[in-house]
Amino acid sequence: MSSQEDQFYIVPPAIHDEVVYKAYQKRGFDDSECNAAAKFSAYATTHGIRTHNALKALHLDDLFGSKMGGCKPSAKILKKESRFASSEVWDCQFKLGQATAYEAMERCIELADKYGIGQVSVDHAFHYLWGGGYVMDAAKKGYIAYTNCTASITEVVPFMGSEPTLGTNPHSWGFPTMDAIGFPVVIDWATSVIAMGRVQQLKREGKSLPTGAAVDKDGNETTDPNKVAALKPFGAHKGYGLSLINEIMAGFIGASKPTLRSNHLDDGDKHTPNFYFQVIHPEALSSNNFAFGRTQSDNLKIILEDILAGGNKNCIVPGQFEAEFAERTEQAGGLLFSENEILEFNKIATECGATPWPASTLNKES
Amino acid sequence: MSSQEDQFYIVPPAIHDEVVYKAYQKRGFDDSECNAAAKFSAYATTHGIRTHNALKALHLDDLFGSKMGGCKPSAKILKKESRFASSEVWDCQFKLGQATAYEAMERCIELADKYGIGQVSVDHAFHYLWGGGYVMDAAKKGYIAYTNCTASITEVVPFMGSEPTLGTNPHSWGFPTMDAIGFPVVIDWATSVIAMGRVQQLKREGKSLPTGAAVDKDGNETTDPNKVAALKPFGAHKGYGLSLINEIMAGFIGASKPTLRSNHLDDGDKHTPNFYFQVIHPEALSSNNFAFGRTQSDNLKIILEDILAGGNKNCIVPGQFEAEFAERTEQAGGLLFSENEILEFNKIATECGATPWPASTLNKES
Repeated sequence: MSSQEDQFYIVPPAIHDEVVYKAYQKRGFDDSECNAAAKFSAYATTHGIRTHNALKALHLDDLFGSKMGGCKPSAKILKKESRFASSEVWDCQFKLGQATAYEAMERCIELADKYGIGQVSVDHAFHYLWGGGYVMDAAKKGYIAYTNCTASITEVVPFMGSEPTLGTNPHSWGFPTMDAIGFPVVIDWATSVIAMGRVQQLKREGKSLPTGAAVDKDGNETTDPNKVAALKPFGAHKGYGLSLINEIMAGFIGASKPTLRSNHLDDGDKHTPNFYFQVIHPEALSSNNFAFGRTQSDNLKIILEDILAGGNKNCIVPGQFEAEFAERTEQAGGLLFSENEILEFNKIATECGATPWPASTLNKES
Repeated sequence: MSSQEDQFYIVPPAIHDEVVYKAYQKRGFDDSECNAAAKFSAYATTHGIRTHNALKALHLDDLFGSKMGGCKPSAKILKKESRFASSEVWDCQFKLGQATAYEAMERCIELADKYGIGQVSVDHAFHYLWGGGYVMDAAKKGYIAYTNCTASITEVVPFMGSEPTLGTNPHSWGFPTMDAIGFPVVIDWATSVIAMGRVQQLKREGKSLPTGAAVDKDGNETTDPNKVAALKPFGAHKGYGLSLINEIMAGFIGASKPTLRSNHLDDGDKHTPNFYFQVIHPEALSSNNFAFGRTQSDNLKIILEDILAGGNKNCIVPGQFEAEFAERTEQAGGLLFSENEILEFNKIATECGATPWPASTLNKES
C-alpha cells in the first residue's frame, strides 16, 4: 500500500524488468521464467503491493528457493492424466511460482470457456507471492477467478490452540467488475490477523500489536512483539476454518504434514506447498434474466451502487486501493519505489550484472 | 448447539416427520417438497442446529414464504439451456429452498463425477435455511461441496459503513474426511459477527453484545442491544469481502438491488435471493503421489493429526459439534427437543391435523 511517509522515485518499467530478469537468470531460471518473474513483480509494484515486489520475491528465493532446493530453475511441469474433463492436476516439480501460476490460470480460463468452470491443482509447488495478482489478471480478462495455497511455513495456531500448525494460508478471489465500477473487485488476504513481518516491524518500532493477533509460547494472547511465538487466525473460528480449507485442499492434492513444510530434511517425506486455481466463466452463472432488461454487467453496477449508497459512500471496495495505486503509477509514468528500495535494487543489479539506476538519475513523483 | 440448560425430550423421527410433512402439505406444498422439508428439518435437529429446525423453517415460511408469495408451493424448476458442459443455471420459480438445494447438490455431484467440478446457480430462490446441511450431506457421499446464498434481508453494514446494505450472507464448505477423522469437516457460518436473533435474545436478557458486532443508527459501534440498528461483518474488511462475494455472485446470476430483497413491492423489479452450489470430486484434485505411499484419505488423516497435535489437541474441528450431537441423538434413539419446542410443535400439529405428542408421553434424555 502507499504511504504518506514515502516519497517515491519513478523507475521506467524497462530498467526494472531488466534487473529482475537478470537476477533470476543469474540464479539459473530460463527465459520464460525470468519474464514471468519480471512481469509479476512489475504488476505487484504497479498495484502498490510493496510486500510482494521483486525485492521480496528474490528474498524469498534466497530463503526457500533456488539456493535451498525449494524451487528448481527450468523445471518442467508434468500434467497428469485425468479422467475428469474440466480438471487438471500438475506436478510442477518445484518450478518458479509465478510462471506456474500464470500458466495454471491460463489453463483454467480455457477450461472455463468450455465447461463454465475449470480447476487446476498443483503439487510440488513453490511460493507464488501474491495470489491477488493472478485473480486480478484473470478478472481483467473477464473471468471470475479464485486461488488458494498453503504458506511456506506454519506460523498460525488453530482457534483455541497454542502451537503454530497452520500457514498464513491466503485466499484470493477476483471478479470482472471493470464495466460496473471501473476496476475488478479483488478480495485477497491471509487468514492470520497480521503477518509475521508486521510483528517484526512493530518490534523494531517498540510498538504493541493489535489485540487478538498473536500468542506467546504458552498459547496465551499477547500484544508484546517480543513475546510473540505464533499468530492467531482472524475472526476466531471463522478465520481458522478458512485456514483449514487450504490445508485440507493441499492434503487432497498431495501435501504432507504442514509442520514439516519447507523443511529440508532428507526423510523421504514431502515438504512443499500446494496451489489450487479455479476459474468460472461469468456467462455460465447467468440466468439471462436481469431486472428491467439490464445486461449482466449493468446489473453488477446497480448492485454495487446499492451496497455503497448513502452512509456507505466512503466505504472501500476490495481492489480499490490497488486500482488507485495503478492509476497513480500510470500518471507517474513509471514504477514507484522508495529510496531504500532503489538502494536494494542497485545492490542486486551490481550482483547480477544489470545496469544500476542511482536515485540521483531518477525523477521523483510530484 | 446443545445447551446445559435444556433437558431434552426424545421424539421418534416418524412422528416429527409427520408433523412437518403435514404442516407443509397444509400450506400447499407437494409430496416431494413436504418430504424434503421433513428430511432437512430432521437432519438439522439431528446435528444440533436448533436455529434452523422445523419450527424456524415454518416461521420463515410465515414471514417471507408461501403466505407472502416469496415461496411458491409445487413450483417447477426451469433448467436453462447452457453452452457450458459443467454448469447449469436454474430458475427455480420460488420453489421451496430445501427441495431446490437437495436437487441442485445432486446435480453438482453428477457433474463432478464427469468433469471433476460442477456448478449450479439458482435464480428466483427462496431460503434454504442451513447451507451446512447440504454440504455435509454431499461430503458424507464422498464429495467436496460448497454453497453460498444471499440472505433474505440486508442487516449488515459494509466495513466502515453505516447503512445495512448486505445480507448476513453465509458460506458453507464440506469435506469428505470421514475416514480421516470420523466425520466430515463442515465450515459453515454467516459473515456477520452475530445474528440479529442473538441481538434480540440479549435484549430480552438485558445483556450486552460482544464488541465489534453491531452499529447504531449513525453507524457508530454499540454493544447496547436496544441501540442496534445493523450488524457488522466479522473480521473487519475480510468478513466484508466474504459477504460481498455472495452479493456479486448473485448479481452475476440474476439478483437485483440487495436492499430491496424480500420486499413485496409490485415495482417490476426482482426481489429474491440466489443460491450458488459447487461440487468437486476429490479424485480430480489428486496427484496420486502421497508421502510414504499413503492413500488420499490416509494423507488427510496425517495432516489433520499434525494440525491438532500437542497444545492443539483440545481444538475443535469445524463439524465436530454437529457430529457429536448426531452421536448423542443416535444414542437417545430419537430427535432431541426442549419442552418449549415440543409445545410449539404440538400447536402446529393441531393446526395442520397431525397427531400431537404431549411432552408427558415422551421419554427424556438420561
